[in-house]
This record gives sequence, C-alpha cells and structure tokens, in this order.
Amino acid sequence: MNDSCHAGLRLNDKTRAEVRTRMRSIKGHLDGVARMLDEDSTYCVDVLKQIKAVTGALDKVGAIVLRSHLRDHVVTAADRGDVDEIVEELVEILKYR
Amino acid sequence: MNDSCHAGLRLNDKTRAEVRTRMRSIKGHLDGVARMLDEDSTYCVDVLKQIKAVTGALDKVGAIVLRSHLRDHVVTAADRGDVDEIVEELVEILKYR
Amino acid sequence: MNDSCHAGLRLNDKTRAEVRTRMRSIKGHLDGVARMLDEDSTYCVDVLKQIKAVTGALDKVGAIVLRSHLRDHVVTAADRGDVDEIVEELVEILKYR
Amino acid sequence: MNDSCHAGLRLNDKTRAEVRTRMRSIKGHLDGVARMLDEDSTYCVDVLKQIKAVTGALDKVGAIVLRSHLRDHVVTAADRGDVDEIVEELVEILKYR
Repeated sequence: MNDSCHAGLRLNDKTRAEVRTRMRSIKGHLDGVARMLDEDSTYCVDVLKQIKAVTGALDKVGAIVLRSHLRDHVVTAADRGDVDEIVEELVEILKYR
Repeated sequence: MNDSCHAGLRLNDKTRAEVRTRMRSIKGHLDGVARMLDEDSTYCVDVLKQIKAVTGALDKVGAIVLRSHLRDHVVTAADRGDVDEIVEELVEILKYR
Repeated sequence: MNDSCHAGLRLNDKTRAEVRTRMRSIKGHLDGVARMLDEDSTYCVDVLKQIKAVTGALDKVGAIVLRSHLRDHVVTAADRGDVDEIVEELVEILKYR
Repeated sequence: MNDSCHAGLRLNDKTRAEVRTRMRSIKGHLDGVARMLDEDSTYCVDVLKQIKAVTGALDKVGAIVLRSHLRDHVVTAADRGDVDEIVEELVEILKYR
C-alpha cells in the first residue's frame, strides 16, 4: 500500500507507535459493531451512531498524522527543494475530507 | 451499544447482512494499515490516504444503513405516530457528517 | 433553479422565512469577507477561518431545511405513495455532506 | 475580522484577486437562492441542493487559499522559525472540515 515516491521521508517512530495503538482500539470498536450486527434486533440509527464514532476516531488519527507530517516534512520543504510535490499531495489528500 | 428506545424498529436482515460483509472488509483494510504501520519506512501521506479510504468505505456503509432506515422506518413515521423522535434522532445523527 | 418534480411539495412558510433571514445574514458575512480581501495585508489563515464560519452557517441552514423536509414530507411518503423518489433524492443530497 | 498575529505573512496578490472574483460569484449564487426563497412554491430539496452547491464553491476557494498558504508560508516555516504557530493553526483550521 506504499505508493510514495518520497523515499527519504517517513512517519516518525513516536507518532507511528501512537497511531498503531489508536488503530488497534478502532479495530476493537469495529469488532463491537460486528457483534451488534449479529443480533437481529439491531436498530438502524444505533449502527449509524457507531459508524459515526469510528469515523470520528479515524479523523483524530488523521489529525495526528497530519500534524507530524507538517512538522517533520512540510515546514522543511523549501530547504529540501520538493515544494511542488509536498504541496500538491497535501492539497489532494485534504480536499475531500 | 444499543441505546435505542425504538423497541419495535430494527435493521432489516438483507441490509444487515450486507453491512456485516462490508464491515468485515473494512476490518481487513484496517489490518492492512496495521501491517503498513509495522514498517518503519512508512510515509505519513500514505497513512493519510489509507485513513481516507477507510473513512470513505464507512461512509458508504452509512449511506446503505440510512437508505434502509428511511425506507423502512422514516417514511412510515406519520402512520406509526413517532414523528418527533424519528426526525430529531435523524437530524442529530446527520448534523456533523 | 427549481428542478423538482414534486409539484405538490413545498417548504413551509415559517421555515422559509427563517431560512431567508439566515441567508441575508450569511450574505452580510460574505460582504465582510469581501472587505477583508480588499486589504492587501490579509492573512491566508484568517480567510480560511471566515470561509469555515460561512460554511458552518450554511450547514445550520441546511439542518433547518432538512428537519422541515423530514417532518413535512418524508414521514408521510408511505401515505402519499412516493417513497422511492423521496428516499433516493434524500440519500443523494446527504451522501457527500 | 483579522485576528492573525503573523504580522508579516499575507495572502499573495494573485490568489487574493482570484478569491475575490470567486467570492463575488458565490454572492451572486446566494442572491439566486434568496430569489428562490421569495417564491412560496419552493421545494425543500431544491434549497438543500443550492446550499450544497454554495458550500462546494466555498470549499474550492478554501483549497485555493490553502495551496497558497502552504506554498508561501508553511514550507518556509523552518527557515522563519515559527513552526509551532504555523502547524497548530493549520491543524486547528483543518480539523473539522
């Protein structure tokens, strides 16, 4: 799933560890939603609420990764000389959030 | 996780089965992201792209559940006599999407 | 701009009046943003903040119109017999919010 | 409406001109919605469609301003030495889009 051409740039270890922990917790949340869907008395709006909660948790992870990326790679792009790629890929990923 | 007070209303079996299948697939996607995060060369923007893909998949599940809810429960609320609850919980869940 | 085929359905007068008032206020807000853009010292993030405030105000108007539509037209669709159209146009408009 | 503490940073003139043009067009669109709301036959979903169109146009303006900000100010923050402020205000403004 790695389609980056920025060979030298990588998510720093501290953030990566935090993201892994949060992703595990989100997976646990999805397991809870799966159990909820096993019961035939499940109400539509309760499923919508759970989906919204998971999406909210993913958005928080996204904000953490974005902060890391800005701090580690974007603010130094002028020095590194890859402003065009850094800016365009960021605008692209943020456009439809 | 079921906090509904609409005792008689439930997600229909066909939609519930489809949602379960999609949720399993989303869980598989999250496993892929977890493996991606195991590698220390992971690039920030690739993580953001995967998070966006998962969020998009969850939004699609949400649209499927919403369609079922509208069709099975909302369009019949006037007959059933629970218009206030049905409308308010729907406005609430849709407000911040 | 009216492309509705639901000849008999219309926004109720009370909601329509409230939406008009809010739209006038949003237009006033846009005038403020325009004046801000006349000054050559305007800072990018201040423009982004104003755009976000206007989008938030429009989302609130959208929630008001949605509540009216649900209450006046969607909960009675089964009685009227236009469930398919009512549900599909609602899923369509809500999909990418 | 200018609450920026970045005295030296400003939206570049070319982008500012484009944003002004687009804002004028969005104001014209709002005038059209206002006329639509003058008619008592207006249908709820047509209003929702117009609101969505205006929000979409504002999102486009936001993307243009964001690209300018990234290119002019964010990629040079390490050189300027205001990384903390630049990153935090950007994460804040992007959080709930």
